[in-house]
Amino acid sequence: MTTAQPLRVGMVGYAFMGAAHSHAWRTAPRFFDLPMEPQLTAVAGRNEDGVRAAAAKLGWASTETDWRRLIKREDIDLIDICTPGDTHAEIAIAALEAGKHVLCEKPLANSVAEAERMTAVADAAAKRGVFSMCGFSYRRTPALALARRFVQQGRLGTVRQVRAQYLQDWLSDENAPMTWRLDKSKSGSGSLGDIGAHIIDAAQWITGQNITGVSALLETFVDQRPLAGDMVGLGGHGDVGADAPRGSVTVDDAAIFTARFDGGPIGVFEATRYALGRKNAMRIEINGTKGSLAFDFEEMNVLSFYDAAESPDAGFRRIFVTEPEHPYAGNWWPTGHGLGYEHGFTHQVVDLVNAVAEQRQPEPSFADALQVQRVLAAVETSAANSSHWQSV
Amino acid sequence: MTTAQPLRVGMVGYAFMGAAHSHAWRTAPRFFDLPMEPQLTAVAGRNEDGVRAAAAKLGWASTETDWRRLIKREDIDLIDICTPGDTHAEIAIAALEAGKHVLCEKPLANSVAEAERMTAVADAAAKRGVFSMCGFSYRRTPALALARRFVQQGRLGTVRQVRAQYLQDWLSDENAPMTWRLDKSKSGSGSLGDIGAHIIDAAQWITGQNITGVSALLETFVDQRPLAGDMVGLGGHGDVGADAPRGSVTVDDAAIFTARFDGGPIGVFEATRYALGRKNAMRIEINGTKGSLAFDFEEMNVLSFYDAAESPDAGFRRIFVTEPEHPYAGNWWPTGHGLGYEHGFTHQVVDLVNAVAEQRQPEPSFADALQVQRVLAAVETSAANSSHWQSV
Amino acid sequence: MTTAQPLRVGMVGYAFMGAAHSHAWRTAPRFFDLPMEPQLTAVAGRNEDGVRAAAAKLGWASTETDWRRLIKREDIDLIDICTPGDTHAEIAIAALEAGKHVLCEKPLANSVAEAERMTAVADAAAKRGVFSMCGFSYRRTPALALARRFVQQGRLGTVRQVRAQYLQDWLSDENAPMTWRLDKSKSGSGSLGDIGAHIIDAAQWITGQNITGVSALLETFVDQRPLAGDMVGLGGHGDVGADAPRGSVTVDDAAIFTARFDGGPIGVFEATRYALGRKNAMRIEINGTKGSLAFDFEEMNVLSFYDAAESPDAGFRRIFVTEPEHPYAGNWWPTGHGLGYEHGFTHQVVDLVNAVAEQRQPEPSFADALQVQRVLAAVETSAANSSHWQSV
Amino acid sequence: MTTAQPLRVGMVGYAFMGAAHSHAWRTAPRFFDLPMEPQLTAVAGRNEDGVRAAAAKLGWASTETDWRRLIKREDIDLIDICTPGDTHAEIAIAALEAGKHVLCEKPLANSVAEAERMTAVADAAAKRGVFSMCGFSYRRTPALALARRFVQQGRLGTVRQVRAQYLQDWLSDENAPMTWRLDKSKSGSGSLGDIGAHIIDAAQWITGQNITGVSALLETFVDQRPLAGDMVGLGGHGDVGADAPRGSVTVDDAAIFTARFDGGPIGVFEATRYALGRKNAMRIEINGTKGSLAFDFEEMNVLSFYDAAESPDAGFRRIFVTEPEHPYAGNWWPTGHGLGYEHGFTHQVVDLVNAVAEQRQPEPSFADALQVQRVLAAVETSAANSSHWQSV
Repeated sequence: MTTAQPLRVGMVGYAFMGAAHSHAWRTAPRFFDLPMEPQLTAVAGRNEDGVRAAAAKLGWASTETDWRRLIKREDIDLIDICTPGDTHAEIAIAALEAGKHVLCEKPLANSVAEAERMTAVADAAAKRGVFSMCGFSYRRTPALALARRFVQQGRLGTVRQVRAQYLQDWLSDENAPMTWRLDKSKSGSGSLGDIGAHIIDAAQWITGQNITGVSALLETFVDQRPLAGDMVGLGGHGDVGADAPRGSVTVDDAAIFTARFDGGPIGVFEATRYALGRKNAMRIEINGTKGSLAFDFEEMNVLSFYDAAESPDAGFRRIFVTEPEHPYAGNWWPTGHGLGYEHGFTHQVVDLVNAVAEQRQPEPSFADALQVQRVLAAVETSAANSSHWQSV
Repeated sequence: MTTAQPLRVGMVGYAFMGAAHSHAWRTAPRFFDLPMEPQLTAVAGRNEDGVRAAAAKLGWASTETDWRRLIKREDIDLIDICTPGDTHAEIAIAALEAGKHVLCEKPLANSVAEAERMTAVADAAAKRGVFSMCGFSYRRTPALALARRFVQQGRLGTVRQVRAQYLQDWLSDENAPMTWRLDKSKSGSGSLGDIGAHIIDAAQWITGQNITGVSALLETFVDQRPLAGDMVGLGGHGDVGADAPRGSVTVDDAAIFTARFDGGPIGVFEATRYALGRKNAMRIEINGTKGSLAFDFEEMNVLSFYDAAESPDAGFRRIFVTEPEHPYAGNWWPTGHGLGYEHGFTHQVVDLVNAVAEQRQPEPSFADALQVQRVLAAVETSAANSSHWQSV
Repeated sequence: MTTAQPLRVGMVGYAFMGAAHSHAWRTAPRFFDLPMEPQLTAVAGRNEDGVRAAAAKLGWASTETDWRRLIKREDIDLIDICTPGDTHAEIAIAALEAGKHVLCEKPLANSVAEAERMTAVADAAAKRGVFSMCGFSYRRTPALALARRFVQQGRLGTVRQVRAQYLQDWLSDENAPMTWRLDKSKSGSGSLGDIGAHIIDAAQWITGQNITGVSALLETFVDQRPLAGDMVGLGGHGDVGADAPRGSVTVDDAAIFTARFDGGPIGVFEATRYALGRKNAMRIEINGTKGSLAFDFEEMNVLSFYDAAESPDAGFRRIFVTEPEHPYAGNWWPTGHGLGYEHGFTHQVVDLVNAVAEQRQPEPSFADALQVQRVLAAVETSAANSSHWQSV
Repeated sequence: MTTAQPLRVGMVGYAFMGAAHSHAWRTAPRFFDLPMEPQLTAVAGRNEDGVRAAAAKLGWASTETDWRRLIKREDIDLIDICTPGDTHAEIAIAALEAGKHVLCEKPLANSVAEAERMTAVADAAAKRGVFSMCGFSYRRTPALALARRFVQQGRLGTVRQVRAQYLQDWLSDENAPMTWRLDKSKSGSGSLGDIGAHIIDAAQWITGQNITGVSALLETFVDQRPLAGDMVGLGGHGDVGADAPRGSVTVDDAAIFTARFDGGPIGVFEATRYALGRKNAMRIEINGTKGSLAFDFEEMNVLSFYDAAESPDAGFRRIFVTEPEHPYAGNWWPTGHGLGYEHGFTHQVVDLVNAVAEQRQPEPSFADALQVQRVLAAVETSAANSSHWQSV
């Protein structure tokens, strides 16, 4: 390992996603044989004390307080963007133009126009051997990667129906504090872009089909929230008094929509952060002519598979996706010793490093993420137009 | 019991629903103390041999081959309508006008116009002490009755979201034979009216709120099916050859829609008979400001309840709805000895007999069922209009 | 059906089991084609008012206050024994000797000696065409009958391990009142005979193997309970004051033991009525060289099956045992419409009537039940002997 | 963090456990604020190439080929023992006597005599400020730590029953190759010590009670296995031919026993590596007078809790143990983002480092592990003595 070529990473942002990405860069080479050796070279953030503390805690060798300086550094090969969505386009484009590979958190951007510009730059950069990837990390959950494999192997036959939900509850309490995720200028949208984007990407990726149109409804349940703290919180356990000054929520709290895919299936989607009791229920169920699949991230190591050929003794088979033959699983623990949330990020690094080393386009590309962005935009348009059908 | 006043029943139709209703009339007085004693007086059906065999099998004392004659009989107090939807209006109206109480299977009718006429007649009859009820039997599942009780007790707080699914798979096989349920002239609609009606009724009844508008998509996956047998089958295990003559499916195979309720919540609904592996997954989940409920008929004796007040040690509580304090449960077996599908019909008889004996309107009334019919119609209108929002 | 030969039943006892058996006799011919027509001819009980009320409620045509008179009646073909275990031997032997077929509730008797005498009489009677059966009704749960079929088909390979539990909680409250089930002179034993007998029978029947030895521990958690009411209660919701006079519990509250089967497997068994939260968790899991089975009566319509041949994508397959091809299921509702607790009793009647009509030995025979009795006795002996291994 | 005092670790062994421990030492300071900074100073193993490759892969700064040299190094503060059980006593005693803190994998030793010697040395060392801990890492699963908290808080009332199982299936295939874990001279025992030790420790720790006696049965299903490879494998996917030379399995394949605890409860235990389909089902259920707990490591982020006070609407509450208030959970991801197998090892390091820094005895101490060892010995004695009751 010590003789591998280094891949020097500069990360922008160091909150929730920054912690997850740092762990992934650090851990990937310990469990996977990588053709390049990731180095946690520098982390950037506007607050000098904050970024220094983060670097020490997360294990980065140096710091910058301006991402533009990070991009200029010659000892950086890859920029890892972990900031809110309103900054993605500017940073990613500058990085790619500076010849740095880019890993950009999802959603790719806050608008289709931004995503289109990013994709154009990314496509051009790829021709120069500079690659980019969008961080739809759930693709790297072994059970979901196995789901895709099953569809590709034809074990479901022709897909007819998709139902996907992403249910959380951390905003259920109306006194949970305001965060940047509830400010449209920062986050682009609410549940729709934050968690709805994940199920859109997963549904398209697993089925191998694009969504072609939607009919949608968006709803905001709580439109004013206490202003408090640093606006970066994720939890609903806020100790903010109910009499604190309040700021306006400018995004959707729940997004529900019906959809059609280009190969024929229909789908139902729901994203919400108000489903009390559902903590991280990212769920997808796919019904085909030969079989069905079901997944719930709250049991992330399990894929349920129904094979109609086993009828009349068929039943959803609860596959514990930890066998050596399963995606990513063989590099970890013995069968049955499950993985956790952060492993998806580690696998993302593994796939990215391999693609970069082999000089090929990593997936999901910015173009893949642009397609998700177009679905998000169609959802918003339909919702604004009395749910009228909106082509993507 | 032997001294109770008799309630002499005449049933029309003797297929799947007829068997379920017969069992209910026979069983109810054995487990519940009823103020009137149901008697299985006569069953009607067009085929003389068929109806005689059914009477012997199901335990009816006499037969008729014309429902009009059944209605004229003076020894009949109540007409139980178990026929396809295209006949409901004519039979129910004639029965009510003849002074017979009516129990009518769901959906109430095949159109709003029919349902409105039935409701008008029913309202008038009620003033004369002649009562009617629509057979949304799932209301009588103990777990769903407990769900309603919890909402009424305020244990969920204000309801914000509803997600309801009715997933079956008996039509997944494209060679499963044609049945009257796939012929719009008989059944009114497909999955929408057959099983979608159940989740619409359950959602409205449990929340105590009406659906005020919808955006919908309907889809037919298999539009031609082998013609075979008596068109009454329910199973997908058809042994009909793939080369049999085919008839046209004229109904929806799947119905998906978003909705709003009059008290504020939003909802997502899905009804399909193509969800391979889901056998009778009538599911409803309700999220409020204080708690959530979840139910799946495939575990019909269980209601899951999440109480946010128990945080941080909250979790969905799997209530086995078989305690003496639970709806209907105390009349059956000791705690933990679960009930089955047909118990809902028995409970329906219990509630109906009590209401008739007490000279009060049973629930769900035809007016309640008319509201469901209006939602069904709005779904069809929206689906025909590019999913544009349609008020109910 | 009306032309079938009658099978005139006389039932002794009318409490919990009496209600279940009455329902079964009444219901079986409505869903199954039986070669003989069961008639609910007479019910016997010592209390005249009680037995008359029971007859009216449960649907029996006449009553007796002495079971000896019931046995003498010429219009009775079969005696159905639903009384506590201390009376089984006397009634069953008298009935068989009077030429009546016998259905006897489990456990067969309160001692091996009694069970041996009963079996000897039953064997002799069978040669005269008079048959007997013991009411291990759980054998008639479709999922357990399917489990046996799977073992017989070799789908598990060679069985290596069995783990069986019967967990209830209705005695958890130490103020739950005394009942005859806690009086050794009436019930023979506690959890051991009441519910442990079911899992012993199920394990032996499904595997097709007999238990050959055990090592056991018995425990009584609450040895004094309030005396109240009629001693027939089953629930732990007693409203008896904690200061009521108390009677002595003379049976085990929990029975746990290890075991060996004659074909090689080892087993672990546990029966308790103190497992708070487990309402009727009659569970069995069987591991073989090719596959495994798992069942829990709290989800009585489901059998879980693991087929190692599907590795690495194997997983416990949740079979909803409601297909027409499954045991008993085809006579009820469409696929996915589950059955309840009482259906086992109905199926028991079906199997018994068919065997009697065909003049063959029904299963489980008294000899089968005697084997269970021997295991119960070995458990008690081992427990009394510091858990030393005790051959059956 | 950079100013914290270093804790320089030397690890012996680098297979499965070595990888898990390496990850823990590396990861703990990134998510927890530690009073000392762990350094991966050196790893020891007999094979020079092997240990060098392991050091590079797992991130250790240097290597030794003799653990005795590791212990002598002055730049080592703590010895982490990840070797088979037959070496634990010698290494641990030497390390403690050399003034090094010790973390020793479980089971502590291969005999009570060894464990007693280790404990005596550990107790003496502790007085000199040199500490030791045994690696029962499952104690650090958040859900199990919460279980202990619930018992301590009295939420279960008085504990009456414990049932614990550790079910795996990686030896089900009789051609799975021989490993050191099947050689009694290396491993001490089979399923009993390997996985049974975990459930013994967990049951004692969670209830706060010791096991005082047992009645046991041990069984070996496959007594000859193909000899192949390095004897370190853990998987049953061996590609070893059925005709390879075979070695003798000298340990138990399954261990089952009943038990009593010093506070009154009874228990049932089972450890097996032949339960086809159960991959890592480390399960424990505890029933008390007020409530019950249930856990299965196959859903490691969930603790089920039944609170009888909620009756009649009580039910097992599925607590997702990822809230900030839950043990260890607040240092990781937002609510609902589950942890994996290796997190237990990271938490173990956190607890160990804190104890060492605070100069107090870490738990579980060698004395705690000796108690487990005594239970293991009692199990073997009872099994050898026809399951006769054996005091611990």
